[in-house]
Amino acid sequence: MRIGFLGTGLMGAPMARRLAGAGFAVSAWNRSREKATALADAGIAAVDQLAEVARDARAVIGMLSSDDACRDVLLGDGGVLAAMAPGSILIVMSSISVPMARELADAAAARGVACLDAPVSGGVAGAEAGTLAIMVGGDAAVFEDARDILRPMGRPVRIGPVGTGALAKLANQMIVAGTIALVAEAFVLAEQGGADPARLREALAGGFADSIILQRQGQRMIVGDFVPGGPAKYQIKDSGAALALAGEVGLDLPVARLVDGLFRELVAAGDGELDHSALIRQVRRRNGLG
Amino acid sequence: MRIGFLGTGLMGAPMARRLAGAGFAVSAWNRSREKATALADAGIAAVDQLAEVARDARAVIGMLSSDDACRDVLLGDGGVLAAMAPGSILIVMSSISVPMARELADAAAARGVACLDAPVSGGVAGAEAGTLAIMVGGDAAVFEDARDILRPMGRPVRIGPVGTGALAKLANQMIVAGTIALVAEAFVLAEQGGADPARLREALAGGFADSIILQRQGQRMIVGDFVPGGPAKYQIKDSGAALALAGEVGLDLPVARLVDGLFRELVAAGDGELDHSALIRQVRRRNGLG
Repeated sequence: MRIGFLGTGLMGAPMARRLAGAGFAVSAWNRSREKATALADAGIAAVDQLAEVARDARAVIGMLSSDDACRDVLLGDGGVLAAMAPGSILIVMSSISVPMARELADAAAARGVACLDAPVSGGVAGAEAGTLAIMVGGDAAVFEDARDILRPMGRPVRIGPVGTGALAKLANQMIVAGTIALVAEAFVLAEQGGADPARLREALAGGFADSIILQRQGQRMIVGDFVPGGPAKYQIKDSGAALALAGEVGLDLPVARLVDGLFRELVAAGDGELDHSALIRQVRRRNGLG
Repeated sequence: MRIGFLGTGLMGAPMARRLAGAGFAVSAWNRSREKATALADAGIAAVDQLAEVARDARAVIGMLSSDDACRDVLLGDGGVLAAMAPGSILIVMSSISVPMARELADAAAARGVACLDAPVSGGVAGAEAGTLAIMVGGDAAVFEDARDILRPMGRPVRIGPVGTGALAKLANQMIVAGTIALVAEAFVLAEQGGADPARLREALAGGFADSIILQRQGQRMIVGDFVPGGPAKYQIKDSGAALALAGEVGLDLPVARLVDGLFRELVAAGDGELDHSALIRQVRRRNGLG
């Protein structure tokens, strides 16, 4: 079965490799072509023209960087969707806004193409291991059809109708960003209170405050390793989209709003290219410890 | 080796049982005596007079409900400390403030008694299984002496000098309270955005947003089971102490401050006896969904 894959960057490349490893015939397109050709050793065929990625494809997977990139690559006369066969499935696995998920689903439906919004969490390590959390929005029947395609990449769970995969990813990012802020504040309190944050992290392991964020991003904060990882500037894209969605459904979420503001301060201070965990720098700066 | 145990409530009782199970001779005192006599099946001797708990004890462990209870039971002429032998160790494992930890250590030192502040995280389940996270403040040599006593109850990690165990527990509680707030906001966003929070919780498992809080308190939020667990009114004791400590060392921690305020609103609204996870009720109420 042939799968088209759009966007073979940090996350997309290992995801495409997992699909090829599971026996799918994968055609890949990437804006910088060399990132697609680099997958030849896995038997993945790089294609030059966008439309080619849809040829004979049971499904096309998009792992593109933003709503705008999705619109550019998927929609319009030269877009991939126009080349997809009726009955095939468009699966958008990058983090997109809920309105974008709905716009794509509508455009797909108009062509007889099914659509799932299926963003992921778990990072490059999860992509390589095929253990990503995959949050899926879309029709239950389409989800069942696509399950075998998604499974080599991780653990797909259907959240609800179209758009709810994107919503779940925004909720995921709200929790991730907020947990980073909590760990950063706890570590700065420890530092200033005469305790060693490294021992704090070790002591908290296994207790109620433990989390993947405490272990991974906490370790980054301790050693000061802020090479991304996930750049902080992407965090504010997600947290902004989460707040916009909250506003749309009439919700005020004060913790999410405050954390979004802290990340915006971090980016405004010039640290947008650093990992999310660099938020501890902003907690220190706000307290004159920068 | 004899251990005195003060406070055999929800947490203290299984901790005392773990010690007895590891071969220590345990004497137990509790304000409501029947909670101490209920441990007779584990070979634990209930004592009537506070001072008796110190008799022949290598260490006395305090698992008392508050700073005030510690002061009442441990300090003063009729307190346990006055009955402890020089060279023995006072180990305070309940959650106390940093100033209280220092006051106890000073009072102990004046009598030639060593002191550790060693609060725990992991709940009743962790206490029963002997898997508590134990955050220890105090001299390194005393910690080494006490390690064999602590180990049947969980995983002791020394954070630093006296007071840093209490500090670590406050940091732990800041993270716990904040994560509850984040999960509550994410679930309310899911509800209002047309997604099922139960599916969201399931999908997030294993991703970067996963945590013990998402799994346990998240499940409570989904089914609406707010029988404690940990009553919300205790949360504001801890978060208040954390903010006080932050103020003492000149720190403003905006996320911790906001979360403390949300829990105070929850308690003021009459939900102080409910589990921490009932914070989702306050998130709903603030948005007119109560």
